[in-house]
Order: sequence, then structure tokens, then C-alpha cells
Amino acid sequence: MSTAGKAITCRAAVCWEPNQPLSVEEVVVEPPEEGEVRVKLLSASICRTDFCCLKGFTIKKFYAGGWPVIPGHEGVGVVESVGPKVTSVQQGDHVIPSFGAQCNKCSLCQSSRTNMCLLSNDRAVLPAGVTRVKAKGQMLYQLASLGTFAEYSVMAETSLARVNKSVPTAPLSVMGCCVPTGMGTALNEAKVTPGSVCAVWGLGGVGLSIVLGCKMAGASTIVGVEIHPEKEANARKFGCTDFIDSKSLDKPVSEYLAERFGGGCDFTFESTGSTKAMAEAFESVRDGGGHCVVVGGVPEGQNLSIYPGHLLNGRALTGCLFGGYRFRNDLPSLVEMIAEGKIPVDDYITGSFKLAEINKAMDTMRSANGIRITITFD
Amino acid sequence: MSTAGKAITCRAAVCWEPNQPLSVEEVVVEPPEEGEVRVKLLSASICRTDFCCLKGFTIKKFYAGGWPVIPGHEGVGVVESVGPKVTSVQQGDHVIPSFGAQCNKCSLCQSSRTNMCLLSNDRAVLPAGVTRVKAKGQMLYQLASLGTFAEYSVMAETSLARVNKSVPTAPLSVMGCCVPTGMGTALNEAKVTPGSVCAVWGLGGVGLSIVLGCKMAGASTIVGVEIHPEKEANARKFGCTDFIDSKSLDKPVSEYLAERFGGGCDFTFESTGSTKAMAEAFESVRDGGGHCVVVGGVPEGQNLSIYPGHLLNGRALTGCLFGGYRFRNDLPSLVEMIAEGKIPVDDYITGSFKLAEINKAMDTMRSANGIRITITFD
Repeated sequence: MSTAGKAITCRAAVCWEPNQPLSVEEVVVEPPEEGEVRVKLLSASICRTDFCCLKGFTIKKFYAGGWPVIPGHEGVGVVESVGPKVTSVQQGDHVIPSFGAQCNKCSLCQSSRTNMCLLSNDRAVLPAGVTRVKAKGQMLYQLASLGTFAEYSVMAETSLARVNKSVPTAPLSVMGCCVPTGMGTALNEAKVTPGSVCAVWGLGGVGLSIVLGCKMAGASTIVGVEIHPEKEANARKFGCTDFIDSKSLDKPVSEYLAERFGGGCDFTFESTGSTKAMAEAFESVRDGGGHCVVVGGVPEGQNLSIYPGHLLNGRALTGCLFGGYRFRNDLPSLVEMIAEGKIPVDDYITGSFKLAEINKAMDTMRSANGIRITITFD
Repeated sequence: MSTAGKAITCRAAVCWEPNQPLSVEEVVVEPPEEGEVRVKLLSASICRTDFCCLKGFTIKKFYAGGWPVIPGHEGVGVVESVGPKVTSVQQGDHVIPSFGAQCNKCSLCQSSRTNMCLLSNDRAVLPAGVTRVKAKGQMLYQLASLGTFAEYSVMAETSLARVNKSVPTAPLSVMGCCVPTGMGTALNEAKVTPGSVCAVWGLGGVGLSIVLGCKMAGASTIVGVEIHPEKEANARKFGCTDFIDSKSLDKPVSEYLAERFGGGCDFTFESTGSTKAMAEAFESVRDGGGHCVVVGGVPEGQNLSIYPGHLLNGRALTGCLFGGYRFRNDLPSLVEMIAEGKIPVDDYITGSFKLAEINKAMDTMRSANGIRITITFD
């Protein structure tokens, strides 16, 4: 019997207030309205930004606050039903939700300078100003207007990319943030050149995806910089040619890299969310064309301090979200790259938990060598 | 009677120690050795970097310290004689010396990512390790290996661009730094787009040249930001469509610009050498493709503090020297633009003094509405 047009009662992980464990609750998911799509989640995964959400810190774009909230912005699902005027997806389509929107109409969508969309700002509710999910009679906010830690969600059509149904969905949630964010940072934002020397601070899921992107671009040297030496083997598996345990080095990383590579690296990348690592990454690129890209989010008020003379000497400091990819345009072809064996998507998944075990899943992601932990639904 | 091959006794402005007035001295200028060129200066001009030199602060590239020193890095001259193996210029050519080198051989000259040259580093002497200028039996350092506040100088061939002899030389010294530095910052580094909103902090010679570049690129709005309201008329003459006296504004400049231009400017430029202005300029570009370029030099240790989340939201922070132009390749065609009426080079010159009046010239440049003050030789 079709569920279309009716409210669905299902389960979701809810955070009722900051710094509390998640609570798996019965929630009611209303049918989608105009421009909205109800999605049955097949799999989700945990990104470190979900921890930021739970701590109550938001970044200016994409992640707005509001309580109670359903976290989760990485996921993959199947369209259960669509609201009026939805044209780009239909029932049964496999979709990857994205934390940024792509309306294709606003001034930013029309600009070649950005992958952002004006609809991406302050996302915790749908463009209509509400979510369609309630618990105990109360509306639940959804992280990035998605809230993928739930069996069902109503999302905006402008958040959904339709992808090839023949690609296995189990690990596909990592395409919603982790993989494109890192790969695109190397390929689109830095535009890493063949033969170049790259260094990557932080070798979690995003950092490893940056390494993957550097390798695809033909970098000759890819240095992983970590404070956890146990990450070396995995880093090399993804493409690192060198690995630095910065805690055991007897000099600043930037000094070591400058000596070793004649003035510094061509490209450096920071994916840790630490302003200290950002400063070190900027200090480690060469004068005369060196480019440092930061992708780690930090709370407002945490500033980065740099010597501006380095800018005059030809170093660039930039950043991006989602690797500069257009969320809905580019995800389908990125998923095809999985089918072609170019993205080892299974290698990202270091553990899997059922929704009921969400707190154990969060703890595992927090503590371990976890790259990505997936959440599965019954 | 030819002077070639003989030492020339002439006059130069010498600074014997930091923070002292210049002293016009009799100096001896030896003949040029291999790869060197002796130039008779026809005109020179004062840049604010000359003041930095006199204070004893150097920036990592291009301006090395050493005492006594002949300051001056803007100039235009005629080749008096050339040393062995010099092929790109000959006696009688008009040349503009540049503070950076272009050897066309090193890895940076071969790179498309920079206009720098490895020979540009720590310049206070010729590539041979000495200068050819002495006073009181002592070798004089030369700012940027040029020392244009002198009647004659020996410079490296790699520092000299040969330019069209039919272009009047009186104002041409400003092409050695000021004009290309600003114009190129807008055209080459920022790549200002037609219809864009630009803002420029600091409306001295470099800042006005940035305005000129923005106008050439077709910017629809060019906001001048100053703490000296008396600069408004001149700023508008060069192309500013708006002018902000930041001292009289009742809110931060970035807030004013964000309100007025829907989130901020497309491009901002800082040419003041103040880290406060740099921070304000970065704060004033829009998310999603906004680009802030700094060109003002600051001493090491003076850091710039920024919120890195702005980078993730798609703002870029870069800088450049000499506007990204290749020193020797690009100067000849820039000089042609003067002949075509595209660069109002005479409008930069707000005063002219003889070499003997160098301290008066420096004071006038320091204090007044001066854009550029030229130094003339008998």
C-alpha cells in the first residue's frame, strides 16, 4: 500500500539540547509540499561537522542552529514521494542529499565564481520556513535542512542529486560531503598540477579525499601531516608518498618542508578545523605561486593569524565547500566514477551501526581511526 | 668623450644609517662587469617603500638591508655602457629598471604561476655579490640592487626593460613600480570582471593605479576607502565612483559595504601596508567568489588576523608584487599604453625636485597629498 500523501511514523535520532546524547525517537514525517521530496534513507554516515552541530556551534553558511534537531548531512536514499512541481526526481529514484542547495536561479547559481546558492544560507528548515518532521508534537530542526539520521526525511528538491541506481548504496552516503569535499579541493580549488609537491594536514575522510584528488591530478609528492602516527598505513593506501608525525618532528613542519622541497610545497591543504594547522599549512607553501587551501570549519571568533608579506610574495590562501562542485550537477558523474573504479568508496567505511546504536556509532567515530562510520536502517 | 670603461664620479643620495636624513654625496661608479649595465638616470621617483628602506625594515624579497645604502627603486635612464655578454640592451637605449629580476632561466621564470625570479631575493647588491658604487672608499648598497637616487648606477641586465625612446621620460619612472603594481593587481591578480563592485583601501600612487585597472576591466562601481578625505577629488579623477572617509563613517566599512552591495564587494584591494586595512578589506568581500588582494608591505612580525570560515565560504585572499607583470617582458607594452593615452602618467606627478633637494622631496612625499614626487638630475 502506498504511503504517498500520508504522514509516516518512523524513527530518527534527535538531539534535544546541546552536548547531550542523541535519543532515537518515534517521529512523524508529513508528506512533501510544493518543491519538496520525501526520501526513505538507505544509509547515512557521520561527518565531524555533526559533532559541531551537537555542540551547538554553527558555521555561517549551511549549518544553522535550532533545537531539537536531527543531525546528519551525509546520506543516500530512495524517493518515496514527491510534492507538487517537483520535476527533477520521481518515486523510486536514488538520491544523494547535499548540505548546500542548487536552485539554478539565484545570482550565485548563475555565477561561474562559486558553487554556492543563496538558498544554502542558514539551513535548518526547508525553504518554506519549517520542516515536515515532528516528535512529541514539536517541530524538529534538521541539520543542513537534511537530518539524515532518520528513516525518512522531507527535503527540498534543490538539495537532491539523482544518481545511477545500479551503484550499490551501502557506502554511497560518503558522496554527500566527505569525498567530493576533499577531491574537489585538490582538483577544482587548488587545481593541483602534475609533478607538484602537496601536503595535507589531517587524514580523516576529507583529508584522504584530498590525497586522492592530488593523486588523480598527478602530484609527484603527497605528504600526509598528522598528530596520530597510526594513520600512516591508511594514508599511504590512499596515495600519500610521505608521512609526517608532526608531534615527533624536531622542528616546525613548515621548516622541515621548506628545507626538503626547496622553499616549501606547491600546494598545502588543511582539513582539521584547527587554526594552528591552517597557519602551519600557509607557512609551508612556497613563495611565487604556492597555494594553501583550508577546508576545516571553525567557530566564529577563532581567527587565523598569518604574515601578509607571504601574500605579496605570491602565496594564495583560499578555501571552499563541497570541493567547489555544483551539488546537483556534479554528483551524478562523481557517482559514475565509483562505478569506473576511480573512487575506492568502500575503503572509507570503517564501521557500520544500526540507527538504534547511534550513540555508539558517534563514540566510535569520535575516538577511533574511523574514517567514516555508516548508519543503517531496518 | 666616451666614459665607457672608466669610473664615473657623480652624485647620489646616501643613507648612512637607519632613520637619518639622506646625504647627497660624491660617489664613484665603476664600469659594468659581465651581465651588467651602467645607466645614466634621467628621472627617479619616490615610493613609500623607500621610507621603509630608510627605517631599516626590509621585506623578505626584493628589498634587502645593508648600510650605507642608496635608496630609490623607481627610475628611468639611458644606457651609458654595457659589460660583456649583455645582449638585450645597448648604449643609448632607454631603460626602466625593475625591483624584481627576470633571468628567464630559473624555475620560477619558467613557471606560469609567478612573475618572480630566483634572482630577486635579498637584493641590495648585484648578482656578483657587490655593487659598483663607492663613497668615501666604502661600497654602497643599493635598494633592490638599483639605487635610483643617483646620477649613475650599475644594474644587472636582468633588471632592465628596454622601452620606446619616443615616450617622454620625465614621468616614466612611475612605471618602475607604482603603475604596474596597481594596474596589474586589478587586471592580472584579481582579474576584475566587467560590472563588478570593487573597493580600494588607500589612494596613493599604487591605490590609484588599482582604481585605473578596475576601470579598464569594466568595474561598474569603484569605491575608494581613505582616512584622508582630501583625496576624494583625485580619486574620482582616476575612476572612483564612490568615496568613503572611513573615519567619519558611523559603522565599520565592511558593514556599510555589505549592506550597500548585498553581502559585500566582488573585489577589494589593500594598498596601505596596514594590517587593520587588510583585515577590513578581507571582511568586505562577499562570500561565494569574493576576492581580496593585498599589496601593502608590512614588516615581519606584523600579522593579519582573519576568520577562516570566510575562506570556506568562498572568499580568496591573495597578493602579488609588480601586479603579476613579468618585469622585462611586460614593461615595454605598458609604456606603449602611455603613448596610446591609456595611462595618464603625468597625473601621478604632484611635484618635482632636484637630487640636491632630496630630503625636501622625501618630506613632501611623506606629508602631502603627493602621489608621486620625481627627482631630476642635472
